Amino acid sequence: MKLLEERIRKDGVVKPPDILKVDSFLNHQIDPILIREMGREFKRLFEGEGITKVITVEASGIAIAIEAAAEMGVPLVFAKKSRSRNIANDVWTAKVFSFTHGNTNDIVISKQYLSQGDRVLIIDDFLANGEAVRGLVSLCEQAGAEVKGVGIAIEKGFQPGGKELREKGFRIESLAIIESMNGETGEIVFRS
Amino acid sequence: MKLLEERIRKDGVVKPPDILKVDSFLNHQIDPILIREMGREFKRLFEGEGITKVITVEASGIAIAIEAAAEMGVPLVFAKKSRSRNIANDVWTAKVFSFTHGNTNDIVISKQYLSQGDRVLIIDDFLANGEAVRGLVSLCEQAGAEVKGVGIAIEKGFQPGGKELREKGFRIESLAIIESMNGETGEIVFRS
Repeated sequence: MKLLEERIRKDGVVKPPDILKVDSFLNHQIDPILIREMGREFKRLFEGEGITKVITVEASGIAIAIEAAAEMGVPLVFAKKSRSRNIANDVWTAKVFSFTHGNTNDIVISKQYLSQGDRVLIIDDFLANGEAVRGLVSLCEQAGAEVKGVGIAIEKGFQPGGKELREKGFRIESLAIIESMNGETGEIVFRS
Repeated sequence: MKLLEERIRKDGVVKPPDILKVDSFLNHQIDPILIREMGREFKRLFEGEGITKVITVEASGIAIAIEAAAEMGVPLVFAKKSRSRNIANDVWTAKVFSFTHGNTNDIVISKQYLSQGDRVLIIDDFLANGEAVRGLVSLCEQAGAEVKGVGIAIEKGFQPGGKELREKGFRIESLAIIESMNGETGEIVFRS
């Protein structure tokens, strides 16, 4: 998506070794106009898939996911991060390791809101190692829901998550895929 | 807002002593069409205030806040909850006690994204004791930003937050104010 690539070039900040900061427009301060365009693009990409539900994980996926859900006219369910030791019986749960924070969170979705018959679009802001997406896929598998696609704002193409998930047969659509970036010069190369 | 009151009556679940569960359409599963209508209503209510920024706190405020921000054409900044003991120098920070979880979180906003000259609309899904709003007000005060209004989806009118904040002179607009609710019968009375 041209608009997003241009914005990353303009306002993204590359930091060594492989950090891309986009918190001026995507995951702390958010440009709602850009996010609505992304929602429209996800609708266009996944229009034929008969999506019944969009899911994401709190917090930074929510803004993008709500726009995709609004464009498609289906509910959004966001998985909650839980550090409590006792997980209730009425939730689907998966463990997600965060490379950013170096810790593991349980993510949970109430069984009421994800079930057999759901055709799910998973949305997230970043795809790097694929931990969050794998956690969300696991919740869908437990629920008997079908994952019809994965929509990502920014994929770090030089990290293994996207490749592994595509090899497993998932349809991954990333609006911008970063092939490489240079922490010294700030240069970003997108996959075309 | 009629639409929201009707939805609360239809899908809200009252539990003793004073819990209103709206997680089927507002804060776990989210109805994006309802949320967009709420965004339009906040725009209408605060149109004359020259808002330059919408702020909220993760996670359940984000969906409503992004719609209000999109309708107004201004950025959204969401405060992050932080449990780390070391708060960085480059953030505004406030302590927020959660009655729901019985713990205290620091909430932070990067100094880059909230500063003097900002005319802020605070958005949140619930107003009960007012802890989260007071934390967000504190971030604005630290930044020298002006709080021009507070937009709430559901206010529990029988808890003190709304009254206290109005007495301090803040303009609070709640789309639905619950005057009372009955955990036994499930009856909900809205303030008219």
